[in-house]
Formats: sequence, C-alpha cells, structure tokens
Amino acid sequence: MIQLTLKKDATENEIHTYIEELKLLCPTEHIIHNEKNEILLSNPSPLFQNFNQDIISHVNADEDFIFTSRKYHKENSIIQIQDNLCIGNNNIIMIAGPCAIEGRDMLQDSVSKLTDIGVHMIRGGAYKPRTSPYSFQGLQQEAFQAMDYVRDTFQIPFVSELLSVSELESFLPHVDIIQIGARNMQNFELLKAVGKTNKPILLKRGMGNTIDEWIHAAEYIMSHGNFNVIFCERGIRSFETSTRNTLDLTVIPIIHERTHLPIIIDPSHATGNYKYVESLSLAAIAAGADGLMIEVHPNPCCALSDGMQSLTFDNYEALYKKGAAVANAIGKRYL
Amino acid sequence: MIQLTLKKDATENEIHTYIEELKLLCPTEHIIHNEKNEILLSNPSPLFQNFNQDIISHVNADEDFIFTSRKYHKENSIIQIQDNLCIGNNNIIMIAGPCAIEGRDMLQDSVSKLTDIGVHMIRGGAYKPRTSPYSFQGLQQEAFQAMDYVRDTFQIPFVSELLSVSELESFLPHVDIIQIGARNMQNFELLKAVGKTNKPILLKRGMGNTIDEWIHAAEYIMSHGNFNVIFCERGIRSFETSTRNTLDLTVIPIIHERTHLPIIIDPSHATGNYKYVESLSLAAIAAGADGLMIEVHPNPCCALSDGMQSLTFDNYEALYKKGAAVANAIGKRYL
Amino acid sequence: MIQLTLKKDATENEIHTYIEELKLLCPTEHIIHNEKNEILLSNPSPLFQNFNQDIISHVNADEDFIFTSRKYHKENSIIQIQDNLCIGNNNIIMIAGPCAIEGRDMLQDSVSKLTDIGVHMIRGGAYKPRTSPYSFQGLQQEAFQAMDYVRDTFQIPFVSELLSVSELESFLPHVDIIQIGARNMQNFELLKAVGKTNKPILLKRGMGNTIDEWIHAAEYIMSHGNFNVIFCERGIRSFETSTRNTLDLTVIPIIHERTHLPIIIDPSHATGNYKYVESLSLAAIAAGADGLMIEVHPNPCCALSDGMQSLTFDNYEALYKKGAAVANAIGKRYL
Amino acid sequence: MIQLTLKKDATENEIHTYIEELKLLCPTEHIIHNEKNEILLSNPSPLFQNFNQDIISHVNADEDFIFTSRKYHKENSIIQIQDNLCIGNNNIIMIAGPCAIEGRDMLQDSVSKLTDIGVHMIRGGAYKPRTSPYSFQGLQQEAFQAMDYVRDTFQIPFVSELLSVSELESFLPHVDIIQIGARNMQNFELLKAVGKTNKPILLKRGMGNTIDEWIHAAEYIMSHGNFNVIFCERGIRSFETSTRNTLDLTVIPIIHERTHLPIIIDPSHATGNYKYVESLSLAAIAAGADGLMIEVHPNPCCALSDGMQSLTFDNYEALYKKGAAVANAIGKRYL
Repeated sequence: MIQLTLKKDATENEIHTYIEELKLLCPTEHIIHNEKNEILLSNPSPLFQNFNQDIISHVNADEDFIFTSRKYHKENSIIQIQDNLCIGNNNIIMIAGPCAIEGRDMLQDSVSKLTDIGVHMIRGGAYKPRTSPYSFQGLQQEAFQAMDYVRDTFQIPFVSELLSVSELESFLPHVDIIQIGARNMQNFELLKAVGKTNKPILLKRGMGNTIDEWIHAAEYIMSHGNFNVIFCERGIRSFETSTRNTLDLTVIPIIHERTHLPIIIDPSHATGNYKYVESLSLAAIAAGADGLMIEVHPNPCCALSDGMQSLTFDNYEALYKKGAAVANAIGKRYL
Repeated sequence: MIQLTLKKDATENEIHTYIEELKLLCPTEHIIHNEKNEILLSNPSPLFQNFNQDIISHVNADEDFIFTSRKYHKENSIIQIQDNLCIGNNNIIMIAGPCAIEGRDMLQDSVSKLTDIGVHMIRGGAYKPRTSPYSFQGLQQEAFQAMDYVRDTFQIPFVSELLSVSELESFLPHVDIIQIGARNMQNFELLKAVGKTNKPILLKRGMGNTIDEWIHAAEYIMSHGNFNVIFCERGIRSFETSTRNTLDLTVIPIIHERTHLPIIIDPSHATGNYKYVESLSLAAIAAGADGLMIEVHPNPCCALSDGMQSLTFDNYEALYKKGAAVANAIGKRYL
Repeated sequence: MIQLTLKKDATENEIHTYIEELKLLCPTEHIIHNEKNEILLSNPSPLFQNFNQDIISHVNADEDFIFTSRKYHKENSIIQIQDNLCIGNNNIIMIAGPCAIEGRDMLQDSVSKLTDIGVHMIRGGAYKPRTSPYSFQGLQQEAFQAMDYVRDTFQIPFVSELLSVSELESFLPHVDIIQIGARNMQNFELLKAVGKTNKPILLKRGMGNTIDEWIHAAEYIMSHGNFNVIFCERGIRSFETSTRNTLDLTVIPIIHERTHLPIIIDPSHATGNYKYVESLSLAAIAAGADGLMIEVHPNPCCALSDGMQSLTFDNYEALYKKGAAVANAIGKRYL
Repeated sequence: MIQLTLKKDATENEIHTYIEELKLLCPTEHIIHNEKNEILLSNPSPLFQNFNQDIISHVNADEDFIFTSRKYHKENSIIQIQDNLCIGNNNIIMIAGPCAIEGRDMLQDSVSKLTDIGVHMIRGGAYKPRTSPYSFQGLQQEAFQAMDYVRDTFQIPFVSELLSVSELESFLPHVDIIQIGARNMQNFELLKAVGKTNKPILLKRGMGNTIDEWIHAAEYIMSHGNFNVIFCERGIRSFETSTRNTLDLTVIPIIHERTHLPIIIDPSHATGNYKYVESLSLAAIAAGADGLMIEVHPNPCCALSDGMQSLTFDNYEALYKKGAAVANAIGKRYL
C-alpha cells in the first residue's frame, strides 16, 4: 500500500485531476482519498508516471519493495535499449570494451574488433572513480567525442559511468545506458537524479552492500519514475585476498526471484585477473545471467587502468564462442 | 614528489607568478620547472593553498599519500572548530545528540540537557541517508532552523551530514563541521566539493572500505585545499550478526601512525545497540581516540530513526563521567 | 628443495637403505647426503612413499607448496575411487544424498532413486558436526550398517565425514572417500592422520579460510603420504545474509591453476536454500568443476538436518539433466 | 528444559539412584520421570555433576544455551586457577609470554622478567598449529620439560594450547589452563574431551566464527561436566588487510550479557603488529575484559613464530603500568 500525502497548497482542482488520472490506471476500488487529505493506493504498480508530481509532499509505503518486487509485477521486465536491442527477455546481451576510454583511435580500434566478434554494446569510462586523487581520472570531454564517434560509426549503444548529479545533463547525450558504479550505489541524490531520466540504468552492487540494500537502491531509482533498471554484480568484499573481490553468483537466482528486473555480471572487476574471467563468464551464463560486461583492451599490459583484468581480443573471442554454447545448453542464446 | 602539468594556454607571466609564490613556501631547490612545461616539487607539503589554480591541468604524485601522511607533517594537526574548541591536541572532544533532528523543541531539550552534562558539540541529521526511499529522510529546511536556533542559544557548534554537492551552499551556514557519511566516503565529487570549503570535515569510514581507501578519501579532500579533516570510525561489515557492524578500534593507532590527523569514534552506529555503547566508548578513549560521537535521544523507543542505539540522558551522563576517569588514566582530559 | 633431518639414532644401514630407495625414484644428482646428516632433495615430487619413515626427525621445505603445486606436477591428478570411477580427468562426477543418514530404509530408498537418475556416488553423514551439543549428532554405528548395506546392494561408493582421529580405524571400512568438513580444515592432527591412510580425501574449505590456507591443508595430507586429495568448496562467510554462505566459484580456476588436484562444488551448504541450488550447480559445471555434491532428501521438510537446502528427487533429476547439457557445451560429460 | 533419555538397559535400581541424587540438587517439582522412561528437568542448572552418566543415552534441550546462559546463573562465574589466583571476579588477570617455547633458557629468562613486572600467568606453546606443515611445529616434549621447570621454580601457572585428543593425557600434568585455539573452536571431539577434565579451559574464538557459535562451543565443554570456561577473543577475519585480524571488542559486553563466564583479550594475534598492542590492551581493559593475554619475546625479531606481534619486556612493562591506571579508572585492579 502506498500513501500519498498531498501538499497543503494543492488546489481541489489539481487533486481532482490527479485522482482522475489515477483512475485511468488503477481500478477505482484501489484508490482512496481520505479525510486527512491523503490518497491511499492499495495496488501501486501502475502509477509510476504520476508519481513525482507537484501536489505530493510525501510518499509513504507500508513495505520497502514496491516497484522492484515481483509480487506486483509477475513478468520479467524487458528493457529496451535500441530498436533491436533489449535486455531481460530470454536472450543474453554481451557488453565489452576498455575500462577507460584512452583516446578515439584506441576506442575505434576496439569497437571495430568487438563488433566483428559480435558484441551488442560497448562499455568504456569517461569519468573514472579512482581510489587515489592522483590516479588517472578519465579523459572526460575528450572521451565523449570518442564515444559519439563510435556510436555514430558503428551504430552500437554505449554504457558509461556517471559520477555526479552536476554532470548528468552534459553526460546524457553521449550514452545509451547510465552506469551507477559500486561506490555510488548508496549515493541517494544520484539515484534520485537518474530516476528522473528515462535512460536505462546499470546499477552496480556496492562492494560492501547486501542484496537487500541493492534492491532498495533500485527502488530509489524506480520510485522517481525510471523503471529501466538493470542490476550488475561485480563482486563483494570478503577476507579472501587471491582475487580482487569475491564474485557472488547466487545473486542471479535471488534477483530473479525477488524482482522482475534483469541482472548482468561483470567478472572482470570481480576477479581482478584476466585468467579467471572466462570461467566465471561461463558460470554466469549457466546460472541464468541476462548478460555479461567484460573488460577488453587492445594491449592490456599498457592499459591506463585495470590492465591486469582485461582480456585481449583473442581471449574475448574464445570466451564469446564458448559462452554461446553454454547459453544454448540452457535454452538461451545471444541477442 | 608532485608533478604539476601546466595548461597549454597558461601565460609565461602566470607561470612566473605561480613559481614565485611557491618559492615563498618551499626551498628553491625543491622546485623544478622543466622543459616539458611541468613543475616538479620534491617536498610538496606546503603548497596546498596554491594547488587548485587555473593554470594547472593535471596533478601527478609518485606516492598516494601526500597531504595526509605523517611523513611530511610530523606533528599532530590541531583542527580549530571554534575559538575555544579544537580537536587533535591532547584533549578529548565529546559530541552527542540525536540521530535525526525531529523538531526544534526536541532539539532544544536535548541540547539543554547535553550541555549541562558537558558535551562540546552537538550532532544531528537534517538530511538522513536511508536505505529505503520510503523511510523518514530528515526534516531538512525545518531542521536547519532548529539547528540555527540552538547554535545561537547555546553557543555550541554543530556537526551534521551533507548528502550532495547541490545542497552544499545552503548547508554551510548552518553547521560547524560537515559530516561525510559512510555511504559517501567514496563519493569523490562530494569529497572534492567539500575540499574547496574551509569548514572542518568529519569523514566517516565506509562500512565496506579499507583503512587505505579511507586515508585516500582524506587525500581527496586535502588535495583540494581543505586540511581540516577528522576521521570517524563507525564500524565495518563482517560476518558477525550480533551487532550492526564490527567496530574496528585498531584504526586509532593506525590513523595516528600513518597520518597527522585526529580520529573520533562513533560507537552508536558501530554496535547498533545502546547496551554496548558505554563499554566501547571507554575502550575508544583508552585506545587514544581524539573524541567520541554518541547518539542520545530524549525518548529512544520513539525515535524516528536508530532508537535502538540511542542512549538516554542518564545513561549518557554515566558514560560521560566514566570516560573522564579513563581519559585521566591515560594522561588526557576532556576539552 | 626438501631437507630431511635424520634422527640421531638412525643406523648407517637404515640411512643407506633409505637413500638407495630414493635413488630409485629421483635422479641421483638430486639427492645430497651432507655432513650434518641431512638429506637434501632438489626435486621432491616422487618421494612420497618414503617420506614418513622412522629415521626422519624433521622435514623442512624452502617453499610452502611441494606436493600440491602444479609447478612440480604438470598433469592433472586423476584420483581412482573404484574400478570404473575416478575424478580429475575430463569427466564430471555427481555425488548426491541426504545430509545425515536417518535410517536404513530412508537411505536405501534414496540410493535407489538416485542411482536410477544416474549419480556416481552417495553422500550421507554418520557423524554430524553440529553447532549445538543438543542438536542431532548423527546415527553413528547405526548409520554404518546402513552405509554397508547400500554399498553392497547398489555397488556404489560412499563419501562421509570423519570428525576425529579416534574414530578413524572404525570409520575406514565403511567409506570410499573420507570427508574432512569445513570446521576441521585446520584440525592438523586429523589431516595428518588421514594423510597416513590411502583413502581419497574430500577436503572441504573452511568457511573462514583463505584459498592459500586450504591448499596448505592439502599439503598437510599429502606430505604424510596420501596424494588422493579432492578439494570441495562449500561457501565462505561474508557480510551477506540472504544466503547461508557466499559461494566462491572463482576457486575453480584458481585451484586448477595452482594445483594439479580436482575440485568439486557443494552448492547445498553454500546457499542453504534449495531454490538456488540448480543455478549454482550449472554455474559450477560451466566454470570447470570436476564434480558436484548435492543434498537430496526424500522429504526435505522433515529432514533431521538441513532440510531447507535439500532437493527432492524430482528437482535433482531436472538439475542432473540440465547439468549434462552444460557439461556437453564445454566439452565434458558425466563420468 | 532438559530431557534425558534413559538407556534401555538401565536397571530400575540405577534409575532410582540417579533420581534420588537429582533430588538432592533440584527441587522435587522440577524433576519428572515419565512413562516413556525419560527424565525431564525444568530447572537444569545444578545437575552438571550427574550429567554424563552411563544410564543416559541421549540429552535433549529445548534451548541451545543451558550451562553458559546468564539466565540460569545470574552471578559471574569465578574460575579458580591456583590458591590465590582466580578469574572472573572484579580483578584483571595479566597473562604474558612467548608465542612458542623455544627452549628452557629462553623460557626461564622470559618468566623471570615477566614475574618481576607482575604478570599472573605465563603463556607459551609446546604444540604450534601452523598453516604450513613445513613451519616450526613447537618443541613438544622438550617444551613440557621447560614448562615444568618454570612452574616449579616460579610457582606461576601456565596456559598452553592442546591440539588433539590423543595428546590430552600427556598434556594435562604440564599446564594449569588448557587453551583451545581458534582453529579448533569447532573441533567438537576436542571440546567434549576437555569437557571431561576439570582443568580450566581458555576457549579462543575462531577467526571465522560468530559469537553465537562461540558460546555454543562453550556449551559443548560445559555440558560434558567442565564448568571452568574462559572466553578469549583474538580477532576475526574481515576484508581489512592492515591488520592480521579485526579485533572485535564488542564481544566483551556481549559475553558478559549473555553468559556468566569471564572473557580475556589477546591483542597480539588480533593485530599481528606489536605497535598496536598497547592501544588495544588499554581499550580491552576499559571495555571490561577480565584479563589480557599478550605475546612477549626476549628478542622479537628472531622469534621462531609471530615475532612481528611480540613486545619486548620494556614495551610490555610500559603497557602493564598504563593498564593498571585504566583498570583503576573503571574501579578494577590487577589481581
């Protein structure tokens, strides 16, 4: 149940119009306008497009998971990225590219090789959230130009990470999916801001965050109107030091059980070591992931960031082919 | 060593002026202006006030810890908060107050009782970062008015959490210390933004973050010009479920060894249970903490957030007195 | 390099015989008997059968991993369990059965159904290591009779957990593989004791132990003469509470890279929830596991232990068939 | 409530005697002998000395914590170690010594200096549980002779670790407290075996074990008749790598709340670094620990194990004096 508290200065006319709109979406018996000037909705799922309006002062829900929950949305959500590209149906989407964009030539070369192999979307950072302020922070504006170029040239969508609300406006035209990185999973202002856009959001799990907190983060985005959320697991912190993080593949059946949203896996950041990426990629496909996001670099040993975990094109191609066979074995296929 | 890459459009005059300013701060032999139009500084610590200037395009350091490191700053940093109030000398600063500000009366009542007990600073949230979008998010503007009132009335400084860059301007006049919460410890945009203010920053450790990452976060703030950083440990995630988090008191000697900055302890969020707060508070003082930040609420069982971990005034007073004895035992005293 | 210190009371004749035996195994130039009465072996791998003899007082190695390391043993070890049953070649071994043996009828019924499905080995506990002393501790002697019965009747090998050195002798005749449980992974006396048998050992990873410690535990067993070690991952402790433990599938490529030994996965204990077992099982096969050990119970809701994580026969059969397809996709097959 | 199932071959006479003995300990109305030949005890605490008798086939309890729980034993347990030495009253017991006993001279020298400083008990390992089979495993028999010598000479009690049931008999005469190490916290056979002795047991927390499991381990010991259990925290595994383990001092108020047993802290193994031992020791005293166990070595840089975490005598003496002041501040004192 959702309780909408109306602002004191909302006019009767505004409230009337709002309720009439709701009635188009919900059965009438699910809408109650009570004497405290609250609107109660017993079946909240369809009202997203009316949710953030000016006459509402406060939203209160009697449970934490409204928009994300499979309880109110039985079917898988299918998120449209381009005309012929969606995620969350029975297909697997393959995303690849460099950790950071290091220049137009490098990006063009990478995208050319990756599209030949068959990838569906390119990843690459323009802004890089780095532990140290003295590490390479991404090419930023220069990266955007490179991104625009390859999106035009190869007609392939692009996912890239947004670090701050202030950059949102200038960032939007250059990307097809906005990535919220692990370190910003509970940057609630950023979640609310991207929740007001209509671009698909790739929401990475924080390395110290529970699945419960992760779904709550999606709820932040969705309760602000953007229903196009894609989860992305990239490993969590544990005591084990042989790998950069501990990849938690159990999230795949859990996210599919508790939500109606797709989930993809990033084995590159999880393992931090290119040698383990193929095994974990095949595992993710077999476990039911809706896609993979993998770091590939023309020359991993010279990468400006995360070279150790980047695959060569040849290694990626081998993985790509094996992944297709595993997908086929469980009744799925690449997009 | 720090390497400053000069912008291509920097004029000779600007560069000359910049170097002359540096010479006032560093011995001449520590400054090299090379043929690649870079400035190299072999002894970087004194240059902070010149650091973010318009003629610099890129900063590169050959080590990660410049401004935070005790290697370059042997003495403890003493951070001035008010005329008679500083942290980092041999005294212990006692911060207390409610988790969230729930109204002016509640705040006034709390502050009146806490100042009678002897606290040096008040804590209280105007913005609350909540896991669920449907939980109470703080009184915001209404809280600021309450904060202003008690700061005026009781002449006591206030620490409160800032959640986003966009609120920084309107937030600054109401607080004496800006808290960066655990969830934002690696929100680098926020770190940079508060690094450009001159208010003291209380930097909480992220619950999934290492000590190394925490000091890096301080380095972000300090490399942008704000040297007034106070660390605050509030527990980390572990497999143990008897407490909300696992309080890691070993950070006290480690932060004092690796940095010249003060560190305070928040046992309330760490344990999540009022019954354990006193023991851990005394432990923190004995281990050498520069202060404590503790949640106290007039009526813990009715608190809008975190009631389970809030002390009553009576319990806090008992803790306060015992803490004074422990401080005395190790040759320190309350401010 | 391995240094064997000889006992002071070793006779010249004994030493001579020992060295002659070594010469049959190692090239002569790799064996040095020095003036301090030590034997130095520069290429240690083949000497296992001579290793624990009475004339040796102390073994010293200049590196931690001798017998486990792929550096000294390039090919995969293939461990023979029965005439037509081995693990570590390119096949996948499927182990299933109840958590605890609850009686002969229950076991017979389970084994009958599981062999019909096609499992290669049965699991079942006679001794149960339980967190509480008041929980069901296993049927013990009664369980052995049931185990003997089904091994005879169905000619199928059995794996079961050994809890203590004192029970080793009476335990051995009833099992084909000795399981060392997670809680005993660093019970070094038990490791040494099973290291002196020649039964294959299933070595579970401790829930708080690193991969490095796990391989060390295998080194304990192998340095006492038993080379038949099979690793078994069953999840580690992390801050995540949605699952009983966090299954770390990255161990599969890591164990295969660092050792020559097989590794199987136990998704039942890792997830603690039957709903997630199938996904993780398919993932483990795709990642290259040499086998799976899964809990199946005729009536999970009434199981005396771990019912929540047990599959029904029908669910197991579905998993078994899907697993075969995934195995086939990566060029492997069931035994 | 405890339910004792009687063996089928128990004679009427035996049962009658057993119940008469119980009646001396419990109010009659708390003992029920039912028609299923079970004895039910509604108030179980006093029956420990009758608990493991031959006529009982099975013990069943309706809650996990009987003997450990403060619910059934309101006062602190005070555990007698020597005539004038007990733990669990309002005093603090200081235990110190080397990690491993490296010879009689080294031990004698250490004990002489430590008793001069004022320690109450000596620690030192005869058996060392080492991650690698090739690391120094303790002097064993030679260590026992050294232990006997210093116990005689200095009339000071000794705590040392027992690794296996098979060594229990030969081990007992040489020690005053039996240490169960972190790796054996869930070695239930060992817990049961020491539960049948009457020596005090120092039960270390496993590095991957919860507080709940730790109290269960104590319950194993106590339900076998030995009520002299002392908890010892030595740090748990977390993602933080700056210290060997993460010391969890919150266990002090939790153990005191949930049980009636004493708890001591081992800051040496927890931090793994001598520089942090003093801070954490003072913290432990302030938090209410009943004692400290600290590694001290005549020459830390040459120690055969754990040198990095060992204090010199001078550093220990400084810590000892500061600890006394902190103890005094909270109304306690050294034994």
